[in-house]
Amino acid sequence: MPFVRVAELEIDPAQLDGYTAAVREEMETSVRIEPGVLAIYAVAEKDQPHKLRFFEMYADEAAYRAHIASPHFRKYVEVTKDMITSRRLLDVTPVQLSAKKR
Amino acid sequence: MPFVRVAELEIDPAQLDGYTAAVREEMETSVRIEPGVLAIYAVAEKDQPHKLRFFEMYADEAAYRAHIASPHFRKYVEVTKDMITSRRLLDVTPVQLSAKKR
Repeated sequence: MPFVRVAELEIDPAQLDGYTAAVREEMETSVRIEPGVLAIYAVAEKDQPHKLRFFEMYADEAAYRAHIASPHFRKYVEVTKDMITSRRLLDVTPVQLSAKKR
Repeated sequence: MPFVRVAELEIDPAQLDGYTAAVREEMETSVRIEPGVLAIYAVAEKDQPHKLRFFEMYADEAAYRAHIASPHFRKYVEVTKDMITSRRLLDVTPVQLSAKKR
């Protein structure tokens, strides 16, 4: 079973475009160059688009630790630290992860 | 972009095993036999395992509508209706969905 992280972030609405550009670049880079980053999904609440939800899958917990220590993740943290107004990280356990082969 | 649904469910702790068996069967069946069901991921909060989070990806909204009208989903709803104590469904818009090819 992969190691899964769930996060809920609120972004300063005035800085949402800048945040979105930064997080998209960070997500794309992580999935492309880190072997243990399986997927990072980000969605916004339809009625409150500054409220974001993340669902992230890593090969194992070590891959997650390597991810948050990576230069591109540290850069994302630095660039976005004044854009994020609220952050909730959930420790979760997979119940079932069902996906089509692609 | 796929059509994404996010849900937060609370299950009666006394019925969690029964609920888990039912939802696993429903998830496995949906991803296997419905062309438009791309992925259904279910995780539990580590400290409160009766609190579940779902992240679901469908080819489009029509595929989601077909899913919730399917016999296996209707059966799941019927079997679990007295097990679920709280249900929150979020309308969300994808910001970015990054995943490795598998």
